[in-house]
Amino acid sequence: MKIVALAGGVGGAKMAHGLAQILPPKDLTVIVNTGDDFEYMGLSISPDLDTVCYTLAGLANPETGWGRANETWNIISNIERLGGPSWFRLGDQDIATHLERTRRLKAGQTLSQVVKDFCAAWEVKQIILPMSDSPVRTMVDTDEGELEFQEYFVHRRCEPRVKHFRFDGISAAESAPGTREAVASADAVIICPSNPWVSVDPILQFISLQNKIVVAVSPIIGGKTVKGPAAKMYEELGIEPSALAVEKHYSGLLRGFVLDAVDESLSSQVSVKTLVANTLMNDYTDRARLAQDVLNFIRSL
Amino acid sequence: MKIVALAGGVGGAKMAHGLAQILPPKDLTVIVNTGDDFEYMGLSISPDLDTVCYTLAGLANPETGWGRANETWNIISNIERLGGPSWFRLGDQDIATHLERTRRLKAGQTLSQVVKDFCAAWEVKQIILPMSDSPVRTMVDTDEGELEFQEYFVHRRCEPRVKHFRFDGISAAESAPGTREAVASADAVIICPSNPWVSVDPILQFISLQNKIVVAVSPIIGGKTVKGPAAKMYEELGIEPSALAVEKHYSGLLRGFVLDAVDESLSSQVSVKTLVANTLMNDYTDRARLAQDVLNFIRSL
Repeated sequence: MKIVALAGGVGGAKMAHGLAQILPPKDLTVIVNTGDDFEYMGLSISPDLDTVCYTLAGLANPETGWGRANETWNIISNIERLGGPSWFRLGDQDIATHLERTRRLKAGQTLSQVVKDFCAAWEVKQIILPMSDSPVRTMVDTDEGELEFQEYFVHRRCEPRVKHFRFDGISAAESAPGTREAVASADAVIICPSNPWVSVDPILQFISLQNKIVVAVSPIIGGKTVKGPAAKMYEELGIEPSALAVEKHYSGLLRGFVLDAVDESLSSQVSVKTLVANTLMNDYTDRARLAQDVLNFIRSL
Repeated sequence: MKIVALAGGVGGAKMAHGLAQILPPKDLTVIVNTGDDFEYMGLSISPDLDTVCYTLAGLANPETGWGRANETWNIISNIERLGGPSWFRLGDQDIATHLERTRRLKAGQTLSQVVKDFCAAWEVKQIILPMSDSPVRTMVDTDEGELEFQEYFVHRRCEPRVKHFRFDGISAAESAPGTREAVASADAVIICPSNPWVSVDPILQFISLQNKIVVAVSPIIGGKTVKGPAAKMYEELGIEPSALAVEKHYSGLLRGFVLDAVDESLSSQVSVKTLVANTLMNDYTDRARLAQDVLNFIRSL
């Protein structure tokens, strides 16, 4: 069964890693949000791509879910001593990724090529694709004005109330090579438990899911998110945060919907077929078990 | 006694550090070559300035003379794994300096401002000035064509035979703020044991030494350099490398010349007053002793 997974950062990476533990590598393509990408200290940073790549490479920090395992922090502490910015905490190994990516992009490589080469170097066998090679920048309109995503997300710790999202550059951007083909040849598309507003929505602009078997896994469990501001965003946009709100978000796209056991009671209100599963992924086994459950669910649709 | 020291990298930094151990901080200004500056991996790197700053800050690697003490190399090893360039070995702490300098330069700060702020952060009390805030790039014309200095020096390990030096950008460049004033108010100028061709010559373009007491310390000891390609350069340019060649290089500029004890026999051939001293600086004590000898010599002129 050929699967395309749509992923943002940590939640998406964990789900992708679960799928990677089960599927033959050639049967899994992960299309990753690049709306969170930004420039910091002159470095081109792709947080979601790196999280997915590090996770599938076994290089991710198992505690945070993002960044590198056994990371050191010499650079940021020295930059702080010099009075430089430190709100975005970059580890030393992580900076190597950004420096080399920045160098390659400036030399004319596309982001896809960079990701492909990095995955080869890190021995990632699955296919990881950015949604687009063109810069797309998620802008968060808030009660304090429009903020760049990382400014909102990291610097301001998601404190400003959101009003609207805009994906700067998206109308001129094309889907990255391989994305449409991967979707076209996939037996099913899994929308990973990532933020619907800022991780999945941008990806959906680049691919057509018509006539595909699409299954989404709710990132909202018991009205809360495991990580990140999705629940807070729903609330501030006047929608009660719940698995139901997520299902409604993807209304018309889905053939099946996966919600957590704690939300079992909501299952009857979902308008597509549902799978009730343990969606919390605390360890590698959880990831594989959820992936297996979702694949079985897809087969049953 | 107010002293201006002209310095390149390691030799100049050691001499400056010797002087810093003796003189009150406000009485020592070090004007540093920036012809070695270059861009690498998108970073603006100032090798000589950093060597002088790190040395006076007590942060320099005591074994190499350049780079940081207790350095780690996570970035370069990760960049190598990704297939990126690694011929210029940048340590992690050192990269922090380059990242923050690059950020500040891009934001519009001058190199002088950056150095001043960094010295404040590193608690360097002496005044360290770049020769110029404008980019000057030492180009080495060789039997293999013209090479950028670091390409020649680090990447090609000084192997190509030199024919000529050119300081790209120097005619349009102005001396950095404070350099001329420092020289004007100095009681004496010390040309540190740095490479005459590529470290000192560029600095000399920016300041006037007329009517000043100028003393040079030979970087060539027994026909050889302690570090770097000065002796090789003299040879390839058809000049026998010796302390005498150095004195001749600065012909007309000097009031006094300092040569090593092993070159004592050459002393009589020097056309200005000489000091024969132990000029090898293996440790902090050597540096201070040489500095004291040179200061005494200056007083005697």
